[in-house]
Amino acid sequence: MVDLLADYMQNIESYPVLSQVKPGDIYSSFPQHPPHAGESFEDVLNDVHEKIFPGLTHWQSPNFYAYFPSHASGPSILGDFLSSGLGIQGMLWSTSPACTELETLVLDWMVEIAELPKHFHSSQTGGGVIQDSASTAALCAAVAARERALANNNTDITKLTAYISGHTHSSAEKSLRIAGFASSQIRHLEVDDTFAIRADDFSQQVARDLAENLVPAFVCATIGTTSSLAFDPVPEIAEIARQHSIWTHVDAAYAGSAAVCPEYQYLLDGVEKVDSYCFNPHKWLLTNFDCDLFYVANKSDLVNALTMTPEYLRNKATESGQVFDYSGWQVSLGRRFRSLKLWFVIRHYGVEGLKAHIRKHIELAIEFAARVEADTNYELYQPRALNLVCFRHKGGDEKTRQILEQLNAEGRMFLTHTILNGVYVMRFVPGAIRTEMRHIEAAWESIAQLGAA
Amino acid sequence: MVDLLADYMQNIESYPVLSQVKPGDIYSSFPQHPPHAGESFEDVLNDVHEKIFPGLTHWQSPNFYAYFPSHASGPSILGDFLSSGLGIQGMLWSTSPACTELETLVLDWMVEIAELPKHFHSSQTGGGVIQDSASTAALCAAVAARERALANNNTDITKLTAYISGHTHSSAEKSLRIAGFASSQIRHLEVDDTFAIRADDFSQQVARDLAENLVPAFVCATIGTTSSLAFDPVPEIAEIARQHSIWTHVDAAYAGSAAVCPEYQYLLDGVEKVDSYCFNPHKWLLTNFDCDLFYVANKSDLVNALTMTPEYLRNKATESGQVFDYSGWQVSLGRRFRSLKLWFVIRHYGVEGLKAHIRKHIELAIEFAARVEADTNYELYQPRALNLVCFRHKGGDEKTRQILEQLNAEGRMFLTHTILNGVYVMRFVPGAIRTEMRHIEAAWESIAQLGAA
Repeated sequence: MVDLLADYMQNIESYPVLSQVKPGDIYSSFPQHPPHAGESFEDVLNDVHEKIFPGLTHWQSPNFYAYFPSHASGPSILGDFLSSGLGIQGMLWSTSPACTELETLVLDWMVEIAELPKHFHSSQTGGGVIQDSASTAALCAAVAARERALANNNTDITKLTAYISGHTHSSAEKSLRIAGFASSQIRHLEVDDTFAIRADDFSQQVARDLAENLVPAFVCATIGTTSSLAFDPVPEIAEIARQHSIWTHVDAAYAGSAAVCPEYQYLLDGVEKVDSYCFNPHKWLLTNFDCDLFYVANKSDLVNALTMTPEYLRNKATESGQVFDYSGWQVSLGRRFRSLKLWFVIRHYGVEGLKAHIRKHIELAIEFAARVEADTNYELYQPRALNLVCFRHKGGDEKTRQILEQLNAEGRMFLTHTILNGVYVMRFVPGAIRTEMRHIEAAWESIAQLGAA
Repeated sequence: MVDLLADYMQNIESYPVLSQVKPGDIYSSFPQHPPHAGESFEDVLNDVHEKIFPGLTHWQSPNFYAYFPSHASGPSILGDFLSSGLGIQGMLWSTSPACTELETLVLDWMVEIAELPKHFHSSQTGGGVIQDSASTAALCAAVAARERALANNNTDITKLTAYISGHTHSSAEKSLRIAGFASSQIRHLEVDDTFAIRADDFSQQVARDLAENLVPAFVCATIGTTSSLAFDPVPEIAEIARQHSIWTHVDAAYAGSAAVCPEYQYLLDGVEKVDSYCFNPHKWLLTNFDCDLFYVANKSDLVNALTMTPEYLRNKATESGQVFDYSGWQVSLGRRFRSLKLWFVIRHYGVEGLKAHIRKHIELAIEFAARVEADTNYELYQPRALNLVCFRHKGGDEKTRQILEQLNAEGRMFLTHTILNGVYVMRFVPGAIRTEMRHIEAAWESIAQLGAA
């Protein structure tokens, strides 16, 4: 398996980035009934090569520029492998103390690395925990917000309101719906020309809801939206929210990784005033999925909302109050030893290595954006943000869409699109671990040729 | 890393099963600040040995008899390693078709292996998906149930009611609370002498709620409770639920694995009438955490409740309606290639190997229970169920508790307890992959000695 993965990484550029199979191709390539007797491992590995590989979209390819990246670095893969091999459960401190305490340690380290508010450190009122994804972090935040609002107001869930924008990640609305908010309780805030929430609209919508005896409970501000890396005005939103005891959750799933560099720490302005914050090292910080870091300003808000301890889980360590039982900080009871992979990454690269990694991708995006600007057939739809370039062909939506589809069909790269102000734009995100300047140049060459055709 | 894990597995019996560290020991053994520059991998591995290992509770030890097991077999570890190394995202079919289609395949295989209702097969009205845990499966079921009840009744969430028992896993109540049910909307059903839900009490509580114009929406029946492996009467519960359009979710997290053997398929009686069902190969079926198999009778119920498709995720395959996008079957958007590990397990062991594995553990429990019964100091608290033996010292609760604490402190084995009818009992679950008759004999020798002292 080690050889298979090493070969895969070495040859990754030989595969079409976007899988070219048709629906049903993979399923129907396998026997429709399970084997009666065990099979040889060699046969299984042959099938991985022959049947699974054609059905992969290669997220680790240097030519993957779609969505946001999802990293799998060497140290992280090994940390994950160790987690799989040890096979322990981290639901309670007592079920493997190292699982809990290493997680606390790396989350405290990250408070220092990314200069997060000091009260997110485990020794203070707050604390952090690894969630599988920003979706689940938003769900935990929404549930904690809901419980706090219900406890502080003599009301029921149907009177609560929540605030997002049309550019907030869809997982925030989904989380609110999962947490029992009806669609009619979820407000969509207006955005400005940069697709950032208008704080004045937030203020007005809150006032309107208060006037109707509703209870504003939750707002999600985004540092780096998915479509266009817009930055909601966190300081203003958090200030308004504080005045009305509204829980502010900040989703920095992608852009939060940039805060390991001092020059991007300004992105986190205002986070010191919010109730919860998350970002995903599994996107842009060299750590395998799943690794979302979720911090709360007051851990008691979270733990009170999510802790249940039946008799069969009672133990002296829990009752001593001296330990964290992270199952009470998340949805599921069970949990993997996820901190190992992040710990491996931080130790292998060091803080300086993390910074260099972020800077490299931003530099590549700067180079790509310069080529777009210099080309008469293309235009930037908005200024480059970090390592996202949103651009389009001057020939319009249909031409832009055709170019994107052709690029993806050829398999030499994979890009995705979004729609901004009704306009179809391509998103180009040089963020894969192996992406170098030569890949950007080759990608641009293909794009420029199609643009000129 | 391969060597480290191979050595670990070979030497696993040399470690105290239950970690003997004190709160804070592990955290304080590490530098409180992250490294500026990268470190050597050798240093990191040394720390794994010296600092992490003492903080592990060894779930893969053959002397682990606590809770329920959490398996990590060789093929499964390798499948998980492959998933980590490929580093793909399975949120949509198009983001890696093989991730979706192999998952559908192994879930369809399992319908055949465990003789699940045929309508759980993907080609029928139902279908299956891998969730991280039974907790999350219960949450998805609760949300789907809630949405169905709200759609079918002109009401709001505060009028819905849900039904569990004091022996239902705590994750069911937690899931309901996360889904927005207040404590006052959750009914605890009475149990009989075997700790199974009394169907007549369910019927009466439903009638009472209907009389108060409430809307019964969800009931969770358990096949093998955590405390004592009690079996709720699924056929009766499902029949009552059907009459009132109540969603029946069946949690067979642990015991469901036994259904790979024809002689235990009777445990699933009534599952053909329920709305959703789950069991965890990551507990007792040789597959690493996280791997919960969650089936629904009507996939549209689930997908309607959990699907959101923003512009940046739109693609032709989704719009064709020919594919499953599993992010719409779960809470999170992101997802690992989790089917690989289960596929490796089924192919390596074959269906016959899976059966032999289950039968071995049940045989070990039979042997252990026979020793308890033959000993004048101990008694079975209830008849053995599958591979769970609940027993106690005849000297009473305090004596039993002392014995359990001493056994765990010595590190030669790890057992946990529960309280049944106010009585403290030890739970002994021979379910680790490496547990053989010699371990049972050694464990019993220690237990018998302490009992005679």
